[in-house]
Amino acid sequence: MGLIVQKFGGSSVADAKRVFHVADIVTKTYAKGNNVVAVVSAQGDTTDDLIAKAMEINGSPSKREMDMLLTTGEQASAALLAMAIEKLGYPVVSLLGWQAGFVTNSVYGSARIKRVDPERIRKEIDKKNIVVVTGFQGINRYDDMTTLGRGGSDTSAVAIAAAMHADLCQIYTDVEGVFTADPRKVKNARKLDAISYDEMLELASLGAQVLNNRSVEMAKKYGIELEVLSSMNDRPGTIVKEAAKMEGMLISGVAKDEDVARVSIIGVPDRPGLAFKIFSKLASKNINIDIILQSVGRNGTKDISFTVSHENSKETIAILAPYIEQIGADKVVYDEDVAKVSIVGAGMESHPGIAAEMFGALYEANINIHMISTSEIKISVLIDCKDADQAVSVIHEKFFDKPVKA
Amino acid sequence: MGLIVQKFGGSSVADAKRVFHVADIVTKTYAKGNNVVAVVSAQGDTTDDLIAKAMEINGSPSKREMDMLLTTGEQASAALLAMAIEKLGYPVVSLLGWQAGFVTNSVYGSARIKRVDPERIRKEIDKKNIVVVTGFQGINRYDDMTTLGRGGSDTSAVAIAAAMHADLCQIYTDVEGVFTADPRKVKNARKLDAISYDEMLELASLGAQVLNNRSVEMAKKYGIELEVLSSMNDRPGTIVKEAAKMEGMLISGVAKDEDVARVSIIGVPDRPGLAFKIFSKLASKNINIDIILQSVGRNGTKDISFTVSHENSKETIAILAPYIEQIGADKVVYDEDVAKVSIVGAGMESHPGIAAEMFGALYEANINIHMISTSEIKISVLIDCKDADQAVSVIHEKFFDKPVKA
Repeated sequence: MGLIVQKFGGSSVADAKRVFHVADIVTKTYAKGNNVVAVVSAQGDTTDDLIAKAMEINGSPSKREMDMLLTTGEQASAALLAMAIEKLGYPVVSLLGWQAGFVTNSVYGSARIKRVDPERIRKEIDKKNIVVVTGFQGINRYDDMTTLGRGGSDTSAVAIAAAMHADLCQIYTDVEGVFTADPRKVKNARKLDAISYDEMLELASLGAQVLNNRSVEMAKKYGIELEVLSSMNDRPGTIVKEAAKMEGMLISGVAKDEDVARVSIIGVPDRPGLAFKIFSKLASKNINIDIILQSVGRNGTKDISFTVSHENSKETIAILAPYIEQIGADKVVYDEDVAKVSIVGAGMESHPGIAAEMFGALYEANINIHMISTSEIKISVLIDCKDADQAVSVIHEKFFDKPVKA
Repeated sequence: MGLIVQKFGGSSVADAKRVFHVADIVTKTYAKGNNVVAVVSAQGDTTDDLIAKAMEINGSPSKREMDMLLTTGEQASAALLAMAIEKLGYPVVSLLGWQAGFVTNSVYGSARIKRVDPERIRKEIDKKNIVVVTGFQGINRYDDMTTLGRGGSDTSAVAIAAAMHADLCQIYTDVEGVFTADPRKVKNARKLDAISYDEMLELASLGAQVLNNRSVEMAKKYGIELEVLSSMNDRPGTIVKEAAKMEGMLISGVAKDEDVARVSIIGVPDRPGLAFKIFSKLASKNINIDIILQSVGRNGTKDISFTVSHENSKETIAILAPYIEQIGADKVVYDEDVAKVSIVGAGMESHPGIAAEMFGALYEANINIHMISTSEIKISVLIDCKDADQAVSVIHEKFFDKPVKA
């Protein structure tokens, strides 16, 4: 008995049969006496289809119009889910992002939620309605439609859960929960019963792609307990919560991220502030950089390497190219055939030998490490893309086949 | 130089090529120094496809959710048209019905516009933007999406033209204008240069289906000059305006309507008020009745016949069946194999011989008349459906092959 927010991704509502399956989950939760808010993404490939339709007309449409187009996707799936719930005989109402009170900034295509005013949701819940809300979208101060960017529906769900002080936020996906490694690639990968927000954050940003990063940040900020579970079966998923509430496990998972490119600026003069200027320039264009490595080059110069996503690699080069001459560096080069492999674990802090074990596993497998980055609960290495799957396997074997409990 | 509202139907924006053709019309109008508001329907068969998708899930979804689903159609086409206009290098913004200020009542599926607050449109025009507005939709007092019903985009266009005091409202369709009869059926049918609001109203309600009736009513009320024209060529269309401003022509057109069923209540006792009660009952269910004929039945009873659309015929029978016994009538029967053929002409009033000429043409062709209805500018006959095309031909020949000028 309580308020439960349930989020269903595009594959969970891809066709009429799946829409009914989701309606079944939602109405069963409601029938147990809970209030339910269901957040839905666009059906299946709808978003990609809409993008293709736009591209046929204009290769670089304004992002405002793109959002106007894309927001139709969740609107349709929300209406269809509501119709399925009606068909099952339950009271329901679907709401668009703006009706549900999602106010965002004006960065079309990847807007950030400024606030959620859940007055209308509350009103509908008071009327005993199941509320279906379109994920991924909101409205800005100009009353224009915005989208939160890919994976934004997770964030929508958590934002509603936070604004409504929900008891639980369930994220239904096509996987059964969070695993110690990608179960399609690593045969001994195990589902975790629980994971901390911080570990989940590292895993999400490392390409595990189970949960959208911003949604986990928000859940952490507001203390919303998440459950990641499959819409295909009734098994319990993985709970994401405060580390303090968890039984400690040394390492929670091994993740691989192939969406990474290494950019190197060769021969940067050894003057103070140059690195700062370079990274400020990229930050001002909203380009996220990840692992940074500074090494000594020839003749007292430095080489500065860092990683960006594939999406940003060409833009990064374009931004830096004219700048290279200006600062007196030699050239800028990039390499997309790299991958980042990482281990994440809240227990890592108090066990200093973890990094050595990880590097040992890679050494034994003859895998060369280009760059290393560590945080309190994460160790990442940049390696050749071709070695990535093997790297995940040998690291997973090292830590999980004879698991070390903290 | 002025403000022009241009409305484009679903077939005019059916695919990328046609969207660009529309973008071309709009931007050429803008390039001549006009402010332009373009009102669009959903692309091609989108609305039907969405309805089919809903039916797969729920055979009788709530109309609220249906409107939530259907309004995605124009939203997508408005965004795509805006992208095409951007591609041509013009400043543009697309607006949803509610952004454009369309406030409607809450009759989902066939809402009526209560008012248009065109503040946002005005603001965008002040910024020199071409404004693309979704037709067919608005928002009600609960902030929920509503649709105006089929053909509602015409009404949207006229409502904007009225609210903005536009200089002209152009309705682009797949025909070149208003004809004296259906040009696909009657080979000598001619395009009219101009027609009065009242004549157009009669023609629209008679199945000519060139313009939505409510849009013509609204144009008449606010004195908005309409032009019906083809998006496929550059030829001038038909102007719809005040009768006072027109050169009089005796008859403007001959129309056929096959979406008509005759309902007869047999053996109604001859008591005052019964007919009133019957028609009130139907009116309370929003069933429009058209031609009414009351005739003497057996034993001092009356037979009351009237016509309704096919869509309403079964419901009419369902409403009346239990009522028949109560009022002491014998039975209610209906016939869908009938058609209404009508002539319309503002000049008719002052020429009493018109009806006789029309009936004469039908008599000569051996066509039997079941019911007759006349107004100041219209004469309609109900005949067998099989005779309808021939009836239109012989009447058209009578009046137009040797046209009688007023």
